[in-house]
Amino acid sequence: MNYPILSKINSPDDIKTLNGEEISKLCEEIREFLIENVSKTGGHLAPNLGVVELTIALHRVFNSPIDKIVWDVGHQTYVHKIITGRRDNFHTLRKYGGLSGFPKCKESVHDHFETGHSSTSISAALGMALAREIKGENYNVVAVIGDGAMTGGMAFEALNFAGHKQDCKLIVVLNDNEMSITNNVGGLSSYLNRLRTDSKYTKIKKDIQYILNKVPAIGGKLYKSLERVKDSLKYLLVAGILFEELGFKYLGPIDGHNFNVVEDTLRKAKKVDGPVLVHVITKKGKGYWPAEDNPQLFHGVGQFEKETGRVIEGKGISFTEVFSKSIIEQAEKNPNIIAITAAMAPGTGLDEFAQKYPQRFFDVGIAEQNAVTMAAGLAKEGMKPIFAVYSTFLQRGYDQVLHDVCLPNLPVIFAIDRAGIVGADGETHQGIYDIAFLRHIPNITIISPKDGQELRDGIHTALTLKTPVAIRYPKDIVVEEFIDYNNPRILENKGQVLKQGEEVLLISTGVTSNISLEGAKKLLDVGINATVVHFPYIKPFDKDTLITLAQKHRLALVIEDHTKIGGFGELVSSIFIEENVHCKLLSISLPDKFIEHGSRKKILDKYGISAEGIYKKIIGEISGVGYGKESAIRPVIG
Amino acid sequence: MNYPILSKINSPDDIKTLNGEEISKLCEEIREFLIENVSKTGGHLAPNLGVVELTIALHRVFNSPIDKIVWDVGHQTYVHKIITGRRDNFHTLRKYGGLSGFPKCKESVHDHFETGHSSTSISAALGMALAREIKGENYNVVAVIGDGAMTGGMAFEALNFAGHKQDCKLIVVLNDNEMSITNNVGGLSSYLNRLRTDSKYTKIKKDIQYILNKVPAIGGKLYKSLERVKDSLKYLLVAGILFEELGFKYLGPIDGHNFNVVEDTLRKAKKVDGPVLVHVITKKGKGYWPAEDNPQLFHGVGQFEKETGRVIEGKGISFTEVFSKSIIEQAEKNPNIIAITAAMAPGTGLDEFAQKYPQRFFDVGIAEQNAVTMAAGLAKEGMKPIFAVYSTFLQRGYDQVLHDVCLPNLPVIFAIDRAGIVGADGETHQGIYDIAFLRHIPNITIISPKDGQELRDGIHTALTLKTPVAIRYPKDIVVEEFIDYNNPRILENKGQVLKQGEEVLLISTGVTSNISLEGAKKLLDVGINATVVHFPYIKPFDKDTLITLAQKHRLALVIEDHTKIGGFGELVSSIFIEENVHCKLLSISLPDKFIEHGSRKKILDKYGISAEGIYKKIIGEISGVGYGKESAIRPVIG
Repeated sequence: MNYPILSKINSPDDIKTLNGEEISKLCEEIREFLIENVSKTGGHLAPNLGVVELTIALHRVFNSPIDKIVWDVGHQTYVHKIITGRRDNFHTLRKYGGLSGFPKCKESVHDHFETGHSSTSISAALGMALAREIKGENYNVVAVIGDGAMTGGMAFEALNFAGHKQDCKLIVVLNDNEMSITNNVGGLSSYLNRLRTDSKYTKIKKDIQYILNKVPAIGGKLYKSLERVKDSLKYLLVAGILFEELGFKYLGPIDGHNFNVVEDTLRKAKKVDGPVLVHVITKKGKGYWPAEDNPQLFHGVGQFEKETGRVIEGKGISFTEVFSKSIIEQAEKNPNIIAITAAMAPGTGLDEFAQKYPQRFFDVGIAEQNAVTMAAGLAKEGMKPIFAVYSTFLQRGYDQVLHDVCLPNLPVIFAIDRAGIVGADGETHQGIYDIAFLRHIPNITIISPKDGQELRDGIHTALTLKTPVAIRYPKDIVVEEFIDYNNPRILENKGQVLKQGEEVLLISTGVTSNISLEGAKKLLDVGINATVVHFPYIKPFDKDTLITLAQKHRLALVIEDHTKIGGFGELVSSIFIEENVHCKLLSISLPDKFIEHGSRKKILDKYGISAEGIYKKIIGEISGVGYGKESAIRPVIG
Repeated sequence: MNYPILSKINSPDDIKTLNGEEISKLCEEIREFLIENVSKTGGHLAPNLGVVELTIALHRVFNSPIDKIVWDVGHQTYVHKIITGRRDNFHTLRKYGGLSGFPKCKESVHDHFETGHSSTSISAALGMALAREIKGENYNVVAVIGDGAMTGGMAFEALNFAGHKQDCKLIVVLNDNEMSITNNVGGLSSYLNRLRTDSKYTKIKKDIQYILNKVPAIGGKLYKSLERVKDSLKYLLVAGILFEELGFKYLGPIDGHNFNVVEDTLRKAKKVDGPVLVHVITKKGKGYWPAEDNPQLFHGVGQFEKETGRVIEGKGISFTEVFSKSIIEQAEKNPNIIAITAAMAPGTGLDEFAQKYPQRFFDVGIAEQNAVTMAAGLAKEGMKPIFAVYSTFLQRGYDQVLHDVCLPNLPVIFAIDRAGIVGADGETHQGIYDIAFLRHIPNITIISPKDGQELRDGIHTALTLKTPVAIRYPKDIVVEEFIDYNNPRILENKGQVLKQGEEVLLISTGVTSNISLEGAKKLLDVGINATVVHFPYIKPFDKDTLITLAQKHRLALVIEDHTKIGGFGELVSSIFIEENVHCKLLSISLPDKFIEHGSRKKILDKYGISAEGIYKKIIGEISGVGYGKESAIRPVIG
């Protein structure tokens, strides 16, 4: 493939000199480049195809990095990355050591603020704009936010405050593609839809215009009244009154794929002194028919065949699929089961539930806070709500989990997907803090299944409890081939000895227990016969089994796919201390830093959460304290 | 004092039969009763004086507990408590073992949902209303929310989703008293203000009405256009278009102290099928002149003289005051220092800063998420933002602290007031989770000063760091009399031996170190000479001092005013394990349950976070393991 224009674009300056025809060709080339590359790397294709013209216009009208562009969520920054000097590295997207799928300050001076979670851009941009006022400087700050992200309460908080700061220039570009990841919901979405399409609005606008034209022909007091009312009518009939009421000047809606209109409107916005919102209508997946037809599938996609759009399927059944099947099976029997998502029905496996039980399914939009407390309200009235959410996004609902669910001890179930290392999304999306932010909350039960069957049983068990339950499971495939969905079993809160050994004790929870088993096999090869104990519950914790086992071993190692501080290892440490256990305890966990992107396996390996890591840790300790392989440590008892 | 009508009100049924005159007298009696009682107990006086008529009307129009009334925040439920059977216990308000200052399900069937934090009521009520639809039942659900709480993003998320659920009946009462705790800010607030007062709106409304009246006199096409436009004009000119656009029917604004109007409007709202918002204007402090004059002071107040409104002052200087003075002193020298509050300027001690540096002070309203990320934006552009916030309310910004401040490692300072036990506010307001929800976040520094001087030095030190810093301090008075504000010192990150002993090691951080000293004195009385070590930093942690000291002692005790799980004690435990420290470690901390209200001292004592608690723990251990007082344990070394 050849990119005659794109190949010359090495910084935003290079696009500022292009003529209309060249811009149009550049847009075509960028789309081709995106499809070509993302078909191989995977990534957020559809959102980026939708913002090609918008991104180019932003970089022509504004002068990055002096002007600051803040991208909400940030998965729509591929075009931005391509034209800000990262074209030739673009094939490394989302790979270990390669470009991030999100803005990263260390990648480029043009990435001015790091995003990943939704609805943060207006707050960040507002802070930058306020700093400019205090410093008496003169740059522009632009937040680019999708209509989906606009449903997040945080965006409203920022709009509300920015609207109040009438003397602070701030440009918000609302990139309205009529969906977040799935179709949008909520009053705001309906409102935006009316702005775009409602013929009633258009008709009234015409009528008013007709009356206003007639005004000069009418005399007397009526004329004066009409005159006085004229401006106000115009104001009232202007689209975007909701934003105007909050204090924003509203420009739009405009066609986001008509480059000249976009550029002109942004130039207009640049001249506004206070807060201004530009409402741009774009089409997700624009210019690639498989993505236009199925923007949801191509929102974030793995590898696919460029010509057909056929997605190359992964192997095996995922934890998400097991969750999906499990709750459908349960929902058939229990009419009180409700499923809730915050704009993540496909990702969390709730699509099928939504189709089968539309009355019992709620997609609240990108609004985790409301999701959690609405679930509390449902539970209070006897329902069994399950909020399926990625670990990293539940962070947004931490206060609500504590204050609205756990304080009144309501039976809400949190199905926490993407717990542990998430892979290509990296730093902003790692699910490695959930044990730390949940374990200290009173009344909560935390289940951590090692495989599909335990996930399925865990869901069943959670539904029998009358208290809050969190179940955490990773973005991974399950290990076993057969899962019995038909015979509900209670998942017992008891440490399971997966392998009986006699020298070394490997302690873990969740899927990490499978890694412990692999580690034990590797140790056996050098004559160390380790015991492996798996704990399916983190809270309440089966202390007794831990203590009994620990007392029978001389060396213990706890392994977890979570950050060290506040994690499973610290739980085990605190029990060793409390119970005065005289067994040496080591640990493998994630270090106290933000963890980069790369495949799940690559990252787990890097941090030693692997059979190899376990092997090295144990051997290192044994040789370090003077045990050779031959004189392998003896069991303490027996 | 005599309450002829109130004394007969034992349940909501008793108010349903009163006539107009009796209602009016009841309102008077309730106000008198509130002033009389709260002058002795302290509490949220002004908000309750404002909702006397509204509360009575709600209980006449709705049939609690079959109909569910959800009170946002919940500090305005005193009237509700008084008329739902808790009048005679009202003198125990906010005292240990007495009535809570917030709704509690265990207190009454009429307290249907527990609140304390802001902006949760619409979500909870929406959940209850959705449950009703699924169950096919027929009760009403009413959320009562202040205009301050409405600025919280969570309230917007819920409004947005409720507006979308057109077939789900839900009543939201907006109790608009033109302030949250201080004056409200934001576009929404200005909008509400326009609804209430703007004469332009009123004039246009009159003009439109005049034109509409003239319509029949005008013929032809113009007539038809005007006719068609008529309804739309009415719609457009209706107040509350912002709520209407989100999908709510809007009723109001109405005078919240005109009982008949309130009752009639609520009856109207009850008949609406979908989501409806009733906009009620009330006056904070209504009927008690000192509170009307100074609603901010009487929002939450201690004891006061009923006749004069003179507040009975506490003794000593508080940590909040030290913080207040410290940042003013720093701000004089450093023009980049910015102070941010989320509607808590008086509580967090920022009033004086706000007056002195209005350009560098931002009150974002009840919007902690925006506060945190706006601070990140400010820091990104070179400012030194300090977000002063209660520990419990920072929970609402957990994700933003992690994702927007600590991930990009921006120098935002979190001044965390009300850390530890808060006293009378109880369960919903305890600051006992902050170590747990912050310690695992990479890049953050956590300072925990033991006294005013360390707080002052901690602020100074934080301002010199180029990374995120949290400083936690309690709702308490400082111990020392003299604080040197003028000579900035760096607070060294080093464990301080406050008292050198030789048998037992007491380990603590923050103000708990003062309790450790008292405990050591008590132990000395029985011949046990304990060492006391204070750590002014929780993260990064001075491991070396801890290890060195621990190795010189046989028994160690860590004391903290924080929940056990994820707290300071677990940090110490994990170090003991990692470093193989052979010193027995005990701990005193708060148990894994929600902690009730009562004075700070009472609650700390109850859970053994006291000299007595330390004494008992040490003596218990020594006698338990066979050491008698005479054979007091010997130092390990020497």
